[in-house]
Amino acid sequence: MKKAILIIQCKDQKGIVARVSDFLFSYHGNILEIDQHVDQEIGMFFMRVSWELDSFALKKEEIEPVFEAKVAKVFDMEFDLFFNYRKPRMAIFVSKLSHCLIDILSRYYSGQFEVEIPLVISNHPDHKKVVEAFGIPFHYLPVEKANKEDAEERQLELLNEHRVDFVVLARYMQILSGEFIRNYPNKIINIHHSFLPAFVGAKPYHAAYERGVKIIGATAHYVTEELDAGPIIEQEIARVRHHNSPADLVQIGQDVEKVVLSKAIKYHLERKVLAYRNKTVIFY
Amino acid sequence: MKKAILIIQCKDQKGIVARVSDFLFSYHGNILEIDQHVDQEIGMFFMRVSWELDSFALKKEEIEPVFEAKVAKVFDMEFDLFFNYRKPRMAIFVSKLSHCLIDILSRYYSGQFEVEIPLVISNHPDHKKVVEAFGIPFHYLPVEKANKEDAEERQLELLNEHRVDFVVLARYMQILSGEFIRNYPNKIINIHHSFLPAFVGAKPYHAAYERGVKIIGATAHYVTEELDAGPIIEQEIARVRHHNSPADLVQIGQDVEKVVLSKAIKYHLERKVLAYRNKTVIFY
Amino acid sequence: MKKAILIIQCKDQKGIVARVSDFLFSYHGNILEIDQHVDQEIGMFFMRVSWELDSFALKKEEIEPVFEAKVAKVFDMEFDLFFNYRKPRMAIFVSKLSHCLIDILSRYYSGQFEVEIPLVISNHPDHKKVVEAFGIPFHYLPVEKANKEDAEERQLELLNEHRVDFVVLARYMQILSGEFIRNYPNKIINIHHSFLPAFVGAKPYHAAYERGVKIIGATAHYVTEELDAGPIIEQEIARVRHHNSPADLVQIGQDVEKVVLSKAIKYHLERKVLAYRNKTVIFY
Amino acid sequence: MKKAILIIQCKDQKGIVARVSDFLFSYHGNILEIDQHVDQEIGMFFMRVSWELDSFALKKEEIEPVFEAKVAKVFDMEFDLFFNYRKPRMAIFVSKLSHCLIDILSRYYSGQFEVEIPLVISNHPDHKKVVEAFGIPFHYLPVEKANKEDAEERQLELLNEHRVDFVVLARYMQILSGEFIRNYPNKIINIHHSFLPAFVGAKPYHAAYERGVKIIGATAHYVTEELDAGPIIEQEIARVRHHNSPADLVQIGQDVEKVVLSKAIKYHLERKVLAYRNKTVIFY
Repeated sequence: MKKAILIIQCKDQKGIVARVSDFLFSYHGNILEIDQHVDQEIGMFFMRVSWELDSFALKKEEIEPVFEAKVAKVFDMEFDLFFNYRKPRMAIFVSKLSHCLIDILSRYYSGQFEVEIPLVISNHPDHKKVVEAFGIPFHYLPVEKANKEDAEERQLELLNEHRVDFVVLARYMQILSGEFIRNYPNKIINIHHSFLPAFVGAKPYHAAYERGVKIIGATAHYVTEELDAGPIIEQEIARVRHHNSPADLVQIGQDVEKVVLSKAIKYHLERKVLAYRNKTVIFY
Repeated sequence: MKKAILIIQCKDQKGIVARVSDFLFSYHGNILEIDQHVDQEIGMFFMRVSWELDSFALKKEEIEPVFEAKVAKVFDMEFDLFFNYRKPRMAIFVSKLSHCLIDILSRYYSGQFEVEIPLVISNHPDHKKVVEAFGIPFHYLPVEKANKEDAEERQLELLNEHRVDFVVLARYMQILSGEFIRNYPNKIINIHHSFLPAFVGAKPYHAAYERGVKIIGATAHYVTEELDAGPIIEQEIARVRHHNSPADLVQIGQDVEKVVLSKAIKYHLERKVLAYRNKTVIFY
Repeated sequence: MKKAILIIQCKDQKGIVARVSDFLFSYHGNILEIDQHVDQEIGMFFMRVSWELDSFALKKEEIEPVFEAKVAKVFDMEFDLFFNYRKPRMAIFVSKLSHCLIDILSRYYSGQFEVEIPLVISNHPDHKKVVEAFGIPFHYLPVEKANKEDAEERQLELLNEHRVDFVVLARYMQILSGEFIRNYPNKIINIHHSFLPAFVGAKPYHAAYERGVKIIGATAHYVTEELDAGPIIEQEIARVRHHNSPADLVQIGQDVEKVVLSKAIKYHLERKVLAYRNKTVIFY
Repeated sequence: MKKAILIIQCKDQKGIVARVSDFLFSYHGNILEIDQHVDQEIGMFFMRVSWELDSFALKKEEIEPVFEAKVAKVFDMEFDLFFNYRKPRMAIFVSKLSHCLIDILSRYYSGQFEVEIPLVISNHPDHKKVVEAFGIPFHYLPVEKANKEDAEERQLELLNEHRVDFVVLARYMQILSGEFIRNYPNKIINIHHSFLPAFVGAKPYHAAYERGVKIIGATAHYVTEELDAGPIIEQEIARVRHHNSPADLVQIGQDVEKVVLSKAIKYHLERKVLAYRNKTVIFY
């Protein structure tokens, strides 16, 4: 079924839901999903609404200008319009650990993700064969201290060339520069292998072991310039016990990382994530 | 904050959200929460909407007839209207096991539940002192095979007398008659100590032990005439291991029962449960 | 580190732990892990003990006969002896759904599973390319009503030929004959896509949807001749809501299936599962 | 059933399990549970073993000296000996929030906790009536900045007077002095309302809300002089969403706090917690 998805943010005001739903109804739109959220503390309104396109009286290219004129202008809204039949284009960055990469490829392979994956970029050559078996081009781009700037430039070229919409860091063990990040605001999803904000930075499983925690976790978040501090999309945990070594924690944690990252990708693909003020609204 | 809550069920049709939200807007209602669900398989529409009463242009007693005339009639809706400042009146039935009872009393005591508890009814005298310490009258009504009909009649009298809105069976170990149940359709909440539909009936923890399951559970549901088969409101689970005896399972399970029953009560109190066709929509 | 693992079952008696640990100590064995369980209801004793081989005074091939003579005979024990440097050989059976298959291959690829996978057998040709990318031979053996007996015979030949120790049914959609199963007692691991004993048989997600459950699950168990009734190794669950369609349940459930099956395989590989009377003791 | 429980810590050496189990066997002890753990990183050995006393050839008061002479001395062990029929004596400290307090009282009331509760101490008079309904004396001891030292002195007198073995801080909102804490090393259990080490200190739910986490938690730990930094006994979590206000988080978190604190108490009561180097081994 062809559908349109509208994402809205604006100052909270009376009558927004009425006006938006009336707009859709007036063009014979059949609402499929409607979710709204008001952040009472800061007085902001968030909405996601999807509707069937087949019976809709506006043409695809008319929706945006008409909505702008008739609704968005009135409430001073920011909005984004998506169509479910145009699949987002996602790039995967990966280093040596393969578990998140293969989990994503497996979901792509089985059709669980409505996504195009035009390329995988890695700073190690290891996973070329496996990636290509899923029919996806693999780009090996070594990153050293000396060539980091050049490497990022080449990465950005590739992303542009392949018209990539968003990037997934599937345990990519390089810190991206602020410049790189500013190209993809709220469009780079990272998986951090701890229950943020606990254990920011390197070796979180070892830090968790040292502290003697009984639960470990993983966090998927949008990348911002401050390390491991961007808006959290999803988190999950697993229990550990005194007999689990740091190596066990790494292994137990990998199962959590896979699930968390894939959920975050899914929410992002389905346009269910609204980021604001370093937080996310997730309409699942 | 004084608010109104409207619960709606009807055949799915275009324009419902628009008409409802327009109705509220036209009387200056500020929508606080709006949730809707369409069951695509059976073509049914469900909605819950709450709004501030202070600025609303209709008087409390006008809302129902005006909504009926202007909206409900058009779409052939069933609807219920609630006001958050009128606390529901809940009766608790209990037998010998006290964990669910005290958990509910504890939430009432701390103000977590917006509820009146005019009475506790038990077929055992054991918990009189504890119940009364929380300021709630305790009625000891023994139930034997011979006097069951009379006992239920007396129970119903008490419920009427105290204008009880709904009943919670907090591990009440008597099966209610169909006649009793028909007085409170979708208004009797039971906690069953298994992960339904597994282990219907008596001694579910022992059955779980025999089967060697690795997870046990509990289920809160509305009581219907078929035993343990009513609409499920909430479920939760706990892990068990080979060294856990049936007695351990009973104890581990009690923690799950408490949480599940209290969540179900909370959803019911906040008018977040819509029951239909032996299922529930829960707008949490 | 080279280590030996001893698995013991016998009638419960005094002095077993003392005798076994004394046996290991007398030959300078350094115990790494020791776990025991007594099933009080049936008076059975279970034990798993592992120790370092390097410093052990008995040669690898002497351990079994000496233990038999000095300990096992005294207590009338059944026991199994394993060495961690001899990797078990596992066959995977799969049909059309690839999520469990690829999850297992991913763990094999990253070295998480200490296992040899000499072959994958499928009644569909679909996943040949992906399986071979992981360096594993893929055998396409169509199974039709008419040729089922022949197909099973061919499967058994292949398992023998490749000296397979145990079989994993990674969403293999054919029911194995009793004859086949008797060749691998407690050595065929199946993943059933429900929280057993709820929803035995076909289409459990649809049955779960019909019942309106709030939690779905998956169960890994050893295959016995009664369908979905063998000893449970592991179970896990995921929450679902009213807006989840049967198709959503299938997708949400797949994540649970993957995790549950992989945990069961891991316990089996590490010799942590003791099956008896249609139950399991799991020393994790 | 009368049983003895032995808790052991020492440097890891060969033959410990053999010697301990042989000791018990030589006096006709029937081992009920045996658990051991080796911390490979620091070379420490931990053990918990319980056995039936009825058939045991040593008298209750002989066990300690004989074990010391025959086993402990050999391995330079620290050990503790407990008897399950001597119930530990627990004091509860509480402030205004009642949920943990009543949860503990409920478990005591139903017999789930094998414990004596000689007193509850509070810096507020609020819960006197409820506590006394469970048959437990309630001591109201106001704590102000000016009288803090005196108040702690009075608390310690009461604990001594009532021969209290350990103290539970059931949301007690005062920081104990180092002097107080040194009287009860690893014998004061606190519940902190965050998933430590995230959100140490005051108002963790508000901090969690600000950070936009998707999961909140609670941590039970032994109190040490560094705030919220003692050995962790148990942790648990609950999911939260964007629409949950800080007040919602407080309420959702209370359910987690209750469960976590009660599990920690239970492990402590059953002598299943071994604390060392700011961590715990939990033999559950």
